[in-house]
Amino acid sequence: MNSETVTVEEARHLVGRAVSLRGHVQAIRRLGAITFLVLRDRTGTIQVVANGSSEGLSDLALEQAVTVRGTVAKRQGSAEGIEIQLEKLITLCEPSTGLPVEISREKRMESLGLPALLNYRPLTLRNERVRAIFKIQAAIATAFREFLNREHFTEIHSSKLVSTGTEGGANLFTVEYFGQKAFLAQSPQFYRQIMVGVFERVFEVGPVYRAEEHNTIRHLNEYISLDFEMGFIESESDLIAMETKLLQYIFEYLKENCSKELELHQVKIPVFAEIPSVTLTEAHAILSKLPLQSATKTQGEPEDLTPEGERALCEYFARVDGIEMVFVTHYPWSVRPFYAMPESGTNKSHSFDLLFRGLEVTTGGQRIHIHSRLLEAMESRGLRPESFEDYLQCFRYGMPPHGGLAIGLERLTKQLLGLANIREASLFPRDGNRLSP
Amino acid sequence: MNSETVTVEEARHLVGRAVSLRGHVQAIRRLGAITFLVLRDRTGTIQVVANGSSEGLSDLALEQAVTVRGTVAKRQGSAEGIEIQLEKLITLCEPSTGLPVEISREKRMESLGLPALLNYRPLTLRNERVRAIFKIQAAIATAFREFLNREHFTEIHSSKLVSTGTEGGANLFTVEYFGQKAFLAQSPQFYRQIMVGVFERVFEVGPVYRAEEHNTIRHLNEYISLDFEMGFIESESDLIAMETKLLQYIFEYLKENCSKELELHQVKIPVFAEIPSVTLTEAHAILSKLPLQSATKTQGEPEDLTPEGERALCEYFARVDGIEMVFVTHYPWSVRPFYAMPESGTNKSHSFDLLFRGLEVTTGGQRIHIHSRLLEAMESRGLRPESFEDYLQCFRYGMPPHGGLAIGLERLTKQLLGLANIREASLFPRDGNRLSP
Repeated sequence: MNSETVTVEEARHLVGRAVSLRGHVQAIRRLGAITFLVLRDRTGTIQVVANGSSEGLSDLALEQAVTVRGTVAKRQGSAEGIEIQLEKLITLCEPSTGLPVEISREKRMESLGLPALLNYRPLTLRNERVRAIFKIQAAIATAFREFLNREHFTEIHSSKLVSTGTEGGANLFTVEYFGQKAFLAQSPQFYRQIMVGVFERVFEVGPVYRAEEHNTIRHLNEYISLDFEMGFIESESDLIAMETKLLQYIFEYLKENCSKELELHQVKIPVFAEIPSVTLTEAHAILSKLPLQSATKTQGEPEDLTPEGERALCEYFARVDGIEMVFVTHYPWSVRPFYAMPESGTNKSHSFDLLFRGLEVTTGGQRIHIHSRLLEAMESRGLRPESFEDYLQCFRYGMPPHGGLAIGLERLTKQLLGLANIREASLFPRDGNRLSP
Repeated sequence: MNSETVTVEEARHLVGRAVSLRGHVQAIRRLGAITFLVLRDRTGTIQVVANGSSEGLSDLALEQAVTVRGTVAKRQGSAEGIEIQLEKLITLCEPSTGLPVEISREKRMESLGLPALLNYRPLTLRNERVRAIFKIQAAIATAFREFLNREHFTEIHSSKLVSTGTEGGANLFTVEYFGQKAFLAQSPQFYRQIMVGVFERVFEVGPVYRAEEHNTIRHLNEYISLDFEMGFIESESDLIAMETKLLQYIFEYLKENCSKELELHQVKIPVFAEIPSVTLTEAHAILSKLPLQSATKTQGEPEDLTPEGERALCEYFARVDGIEMVFVTHYPWSVRPFYAMPESGTNKSHSFDLLFRGLEVTTGGQRIHIHSRLLEAMESRGLRPESFEDYLQCFRYGMPPHGGLAIGLERLTKQLLGLANIREASLFPRDGNRLSP
């Protein structure tokens, strides 16, 4: 019998035809002489019905890779509408010797607890709901690049091995580099700025590293940073406008391309024409009227928001504007990196964060583009310009007013899907206790 | 006067209109009372003509960032066809104090020599021909992802901090990781394979690290690897067929999107229906008839090709088939990684390289997917399975026949553009002597 090799999705349109399907055995149920299998391939799952004994059927184990030959038939009372009547089963590997955790469709992987979820990552990632997280994450990265390419940004790949930190040397991982010390880049910041002098608008999607010891639900020591930087801006408002359009594009893209996955996680995609924006001082004034334990990290002049403050502010704008996002602008210059553009006449800076459902998912701002002012800023922080010689080059040749921002891919994924821990949004997360798998 | 802010490209269609343009001063020529500027923005260059003295004009320096206001006018005898008659010049930064190297349009940056080219990277990258290299490179990465998304591959982001090397521990960079030793990943190999069990078809674009001491025109210690891995293959032929279609797609994409940049480098895009394929033994037989110094690295049974052999083989196929590409297949198992699928009954493996204009740009192959055989392979190489526990997990649960390949992004760029040194194809290259900029 000739049978065409098709995917589960293709099989749906082939009732009556003899086909071959290839995938993993996701479920096995034996009812007397009849065996029901659920076969999973990259496009979905399908029921396979075996009457009587078919070779290989009795030894078959969960997750085994198989080829299934049979006829596509209509199936009563099923969402998928079809099933495969098995004619031949071919196993493609040895049966598993028993799975350490159950990954069936109904099972919520979070209920395993984080250690099991991550220790058995090669298995738990096969669960339908977990797969959906990373399908959505891949789509976010695709939409990010697609939007920026349309806006005439150029993609760059900068080195992750650097000789100087972007923030003056704290929280860097050290690499042995042919007898020298190198560091893992905390951000492509300096390279993005150098490349603004080259392409005017650039973006990068790549890993960044923070050697911070904290062990929280929102920090990773290695994460994927979605960065863009653009020249010839008037102020940070141009960046905020660009990110607003970018997020609209990403969310629209997800609705079009990931409807099944969004539904699985019951994701409510934010819809908005604009994102509210408040200064840090205004944010503080709003929070001061709310009953909170600790809205800001400092008494008097607010320097930053506490996690509780971030959550309360997003809840406030959800109530008032119907959107769980808010830009917080004008952070004091003293709490931002040396390259942040100060606001003239104040102690503030042209920088901002974006909070989404209670968590900072973006940090950005306008940068200092005048060589002499950059030197002053470094010196006021006690940084030695000699250590930043390569970075400073581009400012000596001439740089336009510019700025940019970084979105944490895992944070955006976590907040969008309502995941409890950021580790659930990283395929193979790294933290102080975890270097594998 | 109201003037719309436009790009150089947009200005071409606005003859007679008052516009603002923003960019860098690429050239200045003073002819009596008239000053001619070349303004460069992200879309191209345009001549700006200033009659008499305009404020800021006398101090203006090369590469300074400026806003130019003026009227778009037709220009006699110019390729661009238009120029800007200056009304107002606004400088956006301090003038440069003199450029260490000249980066004018006519200047070939290679002629500076590699140290100057790389030491002044923030400046030399602004040269038109150098920019074109990285426009093409960005387009290659975009086309790679676009093609694989269409073929139902899912993009992944795997960790670059690993506890075990993929090849048994040689040539790894060491990272201090919270009191432990970690390594920089040489390849996302193990993660790609794990993810085949999850998504069946996956790809990744990311940095990889090789702590090799050699200092050659074709090696970098950090490079961008374009990887894909796919399940349910019959043999390595499926991978070769997929790469053939992928390269056709990439080359077609470049022709459509980078015609100006390709022309600048006088790139001849390969056109082919198929790419020739020979076994290593056949390659050796072809080379043995050619007058070469050193066609293979070994006497007797060939284990690999020398650089000279790779070049001669590509030249041979350019003469015979009119295509400077060739797949070389069936490398001995002993010279490939332990996870390479052995060919049954021989000492060969289901692995291959792709040579392009004399250089290996891809290495790939079918992998062992049976748990027990993988253990045997490890043991025969003296590797301890305990060190690969996380990797081995996925094979215990059930893995389909699978394989994949990796394309070096910088190598593909170098070969396509005919660059002399791979460092020219990396924005910020890393080698034994270079950790900056």
